[in-house]
Amino acid sequence: MPRRHNGRNYNELRKIEVQEGFLSHPYGSVLYKQGNTIILASAMPQNSVPPFLENSGQGWITAEYGMLPGSAQSRIPRERNKISGRTYEIQRIIGRSLRAGFDLNKIGQRTIIVDCDVIQADGGTRTASITAGFIALYKTIEKLVKIQEIETLPLKNFIAGISVGIIDDEVYLDLDYEEDSIAEVDLNLVMNEDSEIVEIQGTAEGKPFSYELLNRMIETGKAGIQSIIDIQRKYLSVEVV
Amino acid sequence: MPRRHNGRNYNELRKIEVQEGFLSHPYGSVLYKQGNTIILASAMPQNSVPPFLENSGQGWITAEYGMLPGSAQSRIPRERNKISGRTYEIQRIIGRSLRAGFDLNKIGQRTIIVDCDVIQADGGTRTASITAGFIALYKTIEKLVKIQEIETLPLKNFIAGISVGIIDDEVYLDLDYEEDSIAEVDLNLVMNEDSEIVEIQGTAEGKPFSYELLNRMIETGKAGIQSIIDIQRKYLSVEVV
Amino acid sequence: MPRRHNGRNYNELRKIEVQEGFLSHPYGSVLYKQGNTIILASAMPQNSVPPFLENSGQGWITAEYGMLPGSAQSRIPRERNKISGRTYEIQRIIGRSLRAGFDLNKIGQRTIIVDCDVIQADGGTRTASITAGFIALYKTIEKLVKIQEIETLPLKNFIAGISVGIIDDEVYLDLDYEEDSIAEVDLNLVMNEDSEIVEIQGTAEGKPFSYELLNRMIETGKAGIQSIIDIQRKYLSVEVV
Amino acid sequence: MPRRHNGRNYNELRKIEVQEGFLSHPYGSVLYKQGNTIILASAMPQNSVPPFLENSGQGWITAEYGMLPGSAQSRIPRERNKISGRTYEIQRIIGRSLRAGFDLNKIGQRTIIVDCDVIQADGGTRTASITAGFIALYKTIEKLVKIQEIETLPLKNFIAGISVGIIDDEVYLDLDYEEDSIAEVDLNLVMNEDSEIVEIQGTAEGKPFSYELLNRMIETGKAGIQSIIDIQRKYLSVEVV
Amino acid sequence: MPRRHNGRNYNELRKIEVQEGFLSHPYGSVLYKQGNTIILASAMPQNSVPPFLENSGQGWITAEYGMLPGSAQSRIPRERNKISGRTYEIQRIIGRSLRAGFDLNKIGQRTIIVDCDVIQADGGTRTASITAGFIALYKTIEKLVKIQEIETLPLKNFIAGISVGIIDDEVYLDLDYEEDSIAEVDLNLVMNEDSEIVEIQGTAEGKPFSYELLNRMIETGKAGIQSIIDIQRKYLSVEVV
Amino acid sequence: MPRRHNGRNYNELRKIEVQEGFLSHPYGSVLYKQGNTIILASAMPQNSVPPFLENSGQGWITAEYGMLPGSAQSRIPRERNKISGRTYEIQRIIGRSLRAGFDLNKIGQRTIIVDCDVIQADGGTRTASITAGFIALYKTIEKLVKIQEIETLPLKNFIAGISVGIIDDEVYLDLDYEEDSIAEVDLNLVMNEDSEIVEIQGTAEGKPFSYELLNRMIETGKAGIQSIIDIQRKYLSVEVV
Repeated sequence: MPRRHNGRNYNELRKIEVQEGFLSHPYGSVLYKQGNTIILASAMPQNSVPPFLENSGQGWITAEYGMLPGSAQSRIPRERNKISGRTYEIQRIIGRSLRAGFDLNKIGQRTIIVDCDVIQADGGTRTASITAGFIALYKTIEKLVKIQEIETLPLKNFIAGISVGIIDDEVYLDLDYEEDSIAEVDLNLVMNEDSEIVEIQGTAEGKPFSYELLNRMIETGKAGIQSIIDIQRKYLSVEVV
Repeated sequence: MPRRHNGRNYNELRKIEVQEGFLSHPYGSVLYKQGNTIILASAMPQNSVPPFLENSGQGWITAEYGMLPGSAQSRIPRERNKISGRTYEIQRIIGRSLRAGFDLNKIGQRTIIVDCDVIQADGGTRTASITAGFIALYKTIEKLVKIQEIETLPLKNFIAGISVGIIDDEVYLDLDYEEDSIAEVDLNLVMNEDSEIVEIQGTAEGKPFSYELLNRMIETGKAGIQSIIDIQRKYLSVEVV
Repeated sequence: MPRRHNGRNYNELRKIEVQEGFLSHPYGSVLYKQGNTIILASAMPQNSVPPFLENSGQGWITAEYGMLPGSAQSRIPRERNKISGRTYEIQRIIGRSLRAGFDLNKIGQRTIIVDCDVIQADGGTRTASITAGFIALYKTIEKLVKIQEIETLPLKNFIAGISVGIIDDEVYLDLDYEEDSIAEVDLNLVMNEDSEIVEIQGTAEGKPFSYELLNRMIETGKAGIQSIIDIQRKYLSVEVV
Repeated sequence: MPRRHNGRNYNELRKIEVQEGFLSHPYGSVLYKQGNTIILASAMPQNSVPPFLENSGQGWITAEYGMLPGSAQSRIPRERNKISGRTYEIQRIIGRSLRAGFDLNKIGQRTIIVDCDVIQADGGTRTASITAGFIALYKTIEKLVKIQEIETLPLKNFIAGISVGIIDDEVYLDLDYEEDSIAEVDLNLVMNEDSEIVEIQGTAEGKPFSYELLNRMIETGKAGIQSIIDIQRKYLSVEVV
Repeated sequence: MPRRHNGRNYNELRKIEVQEGFLSHPYGSVLYKQGNTIILASAMPQNSVPPFLENSGQGWITAEYGMLPGSAQSRIPRERNKISGRTYEIQRIIGRSLRAGFDLNKIGQRTIIVDCDVIQADGGTRTASITAGFIALYKTIEKLVKIQEIETLPLKNFIAGISVGIIDDEVYLDLDYEEDSIAEVDLNLVMNEDSEIVEIQGTAEGKPFSYELLNRMIETGKAGIQSIIDIQRKYLSVEVV
Repeated sequence: MPRRHNGRNYNELRKIEVQEGFLSHPYGSVLYKQGNTIILASAMPQNSVPPFLENSGQGWITAEYGMLPGSAQSRIPRERNKISGRTYEIQRIIGRSLRAGFDLNKIGQRTIIVDCDVIQADGGTRTASITAGFIALYKTIEKLVKIQEIETLPLKNFIAGISVGIIDDEVYLDLDYEEDSIAEVDLNLVMNEDSEIVEIQGTAEGKPFSYELLNRMIETGKAGIQSIIDIQRKYLSVEVV
């Protein structure tokens, strides 16, 4: 019976380790490992909102994403003059996904910036950033509740992401870099604890794929996300409002 | 029986008009209207490839996207110092989608840049850019065949895109700006003539959506794309190799 | 009797076509064709003025100019990081010329931005932008009068521009690209309906020219501008205040 | 009989002082004073040409212009992120004017950059830069002849510039800052030693001006330029080839 | 007997922890903790040298420095458009210091980039970066020796840095953030294993300091650096050539 | 008895010439020559302070530094897109040094920008900029006192800088470019009139140096600075408060 190069089953997640509270300064921070992919996520509130929300009473959640130079096989140049399209795209999906987790009308007139920095990259950095970013964001909002800056925890959904791919017509869960680079289809899936879809992004650079394959990928991803949300819950004890 | 504010049925496309060969200089160009959304697309070959393809024998297809200042209700500032994340994201999905249409190993050591400029915006500019960009790209490659720069037309798939959305639990095809701004879910779908998926991007900023709704959206989008590909075929007479 | 490569007489303008109201959103817009040169001009008011006019009661008119990538024989790269000196120079002459058309003290505390985008380039894009930009600007201000944002039409002058050149000691009116690229002297002339000079810019990269030739160029340009202003008047019916 | 605020006659130049060889390093340099306007010009050859001249055998002359922060009444911010449209426009007229002075086919495959820095500004900095830049450029090319990098001095024309303006319908030569700021018309004129026109740029931000006034301005400017070229000749002893 | 707010003696270092080989991809990497200051340093060789070293046979060592957004009390904005003067200054002192450690003529025609990223900031990040960067650099060069890209280890000196300050006329070693922010004098000292000076940078924003105090600061710093180099040696076993 | 290539003794300064009031517009300005190094320094007050000082009642002094293109052997490109690390480093040491000269609490809620432009470079431009910048700054503040914008001259220290180097184990004062480029150690020293240290920056790119050599360099530099401050006093007649 054939298995993956890393010994995992097709529908098996990599080992996840969570060091919550990794940093002293931010209210919420986490060193998140999913296999060899390592994300440092932190969230910090700022006393202002984007122009389109001024005087609206609503708050905002946004995300920034970066890769440290030593995170990959070849050195990743710092984005100091110009941000790549890839970075922008990733930041936007992280931000949109995390905004689905909380009621923006109840976090006050502030922007919470969630920073996701890739310490080490081995595939799936954008979905790992969503999963890790959610933990840091949750802890930050929880702290704002504790210090009475926010009344009650305005949680709407637990949010986590996973990548799914197709290699030789087989569905693979949670691809590492080696698998990712040969996958024909790459699907990033973000869901909540009720298996509802928050973001779905599927790309076929290789060859277009059928509707039936999409279904199988979603099913596989759904199970993976539920396992990840179970892990998130271990570190985030408060009940959903 | 309720209908849309613009009188269309839920699964009805806007009127599409195609002025192929709108510009004198590029090999392929089109002024493409889908309702009040107007895209000017042109494609021009360049004698170089990106660094990662040098000496590979393979060519490249890439896309750029812009909005003219007068295309929207409020003036759109030119992106002269910094390109927005939104623009990057759109350029990347156009480029990936169009690359699925042709065999890059058979277009020669060149980059074809497909420029999609929004003359007027009324929703669905990114998917209209894919549809229009494909026509301009096809005509350019056809011309390269005619002048014997490329041997035979390396067509793999016809490619078109459409937006689908959900408003009050109803699936809407081909949203205009007014509909787009109130949609709870926004799905951009890119398919080929066999209804295989090239790109799928679904976003729920409002509230997460079920798997069943995703299915209905894909079904509705699929039919719309087939109608659009029929229109593309009218202007692109050559047979698929 | 020798004539120009395009069959025109030396002092003959190219055919001018005006599609006023080409766009839905801006108050004033025009698709302007002068031979094969096509300009899309639109004007939109903004509720602010440059710092040097704050609290002055005076308004401002400014212009931006761009070339679409497919407008020329070789693809024109988008100016996304750095604006070329040529673009700056052209924007400045368009802006200064248009400001001569209206009484800035009577347009209110606002900036009207006139956008001139070259859809297709075949010589004379800067003077065609002035001519087209004036139409879009006029319509915008007229609309501001209609909606009672401005009391009466603060028109001072009709403004139009034309290029004149010298080839083999012969004066050519309204040069196309082929003529422009071999001209020894290039003169851009902007005048009002009384044949008074608003801007004159003459350049001899080839060889310096005599005062007598300058005179002949101005005479030829003057007649051309009067014909163009007659065309403007057809689309702009209101009387001068 | 009325005269100017500075005691000069209407057609009188300011006092000109030339310190040729002001700097040790460049082949040609000059500290040029025209009244209270002070320009430091230097010219330095570079062993490369712009892309469009590669393998053409032709050389190039270009100019850069800057204002020192302390040169004006209010501090001039350094242009470190973005160059203003005004700077670009001035650099381009200096460059074009100086290229008219020498035969580019005979200066070798090199670019000579002429730097004009405004040490102190009191009106007319762009035309003073042309006059001063010509001296620095001439000395540099003369040196290149001396060290046998160029065969013979490829001089075509002496080049100098002057500003002329209209205040209360009177023609003023060589305006200082106070006069410049109230002038209704501003004309910059660049001519050679035969009073042929190299560049003419006239602007009426205030009110359009008649053809007759243009003639009077050119006549006045012509005389001024001839006096300036006489001064240039004193410092540049070689005969025209 | 008064002591420091953190319980240390005036001449006492913070606790240092070294996780050598923290990252999988770079040849050399270290997670370096000095009290609550945490630096992630990695070094990666590139197959090119700066222009001034081309064809010289010599290699180059350079450094980049960054602070992660969550590293400090207030969020540190990413330097994505413009690098601050502080960052440039720090990068330059790290680079110069590390170049003193190795014989650049013997590392081959390559550039080794040492990246120092501040995971957490509590004073002394620039000197900790030098200390940590040296370890990552050493390991990288050692690896290049092992894989026979370099013949023998071209080590010249062990290099480490420390900060020293003056508060109330008392000399403090290894200041934390709280101490740093009230210090009257701030001295950064970089030395080798023989207590020779590689870099000395002393600044008195508060009030100028006497020569005698400088002497005491250097003495205190010297002892601290020797202790740090002893720690470096534990992780870097090879003998000095 | 061996001497320096320029005939000076090891501890001999170059000839210093001061043209105070060189420019008409700034309150304080100076053309400062130290041998062949020429600095144009000017200081101009601005009616604002940096964000961190708003509402603090305190003022600010900052510096900018630039090199004119013709100041060196090879043309220095203008820093128009990106400022080099070297420039940032120099600006920061000039700014910090000058702030040590005056009581910022007594200069009012304003920023005084001191601009130091290198007209000609022959070594020691950063320390010459500090010396020259102090004169321009002093004159500006003196003028602010005269026009009653500041009550009394808030002078704390006279400030001057000098470079010292080591060549063949010999200490050289005030290095010119030729000496600077072969020096093994480069020390920049900034002191006040009491020989207290304001800034000390010593770098050994060549080889680390002993503490004893540092002492000798400081002794030599100290004497040089006292001579320079004596010259400053000649041009700045007011008594220290």
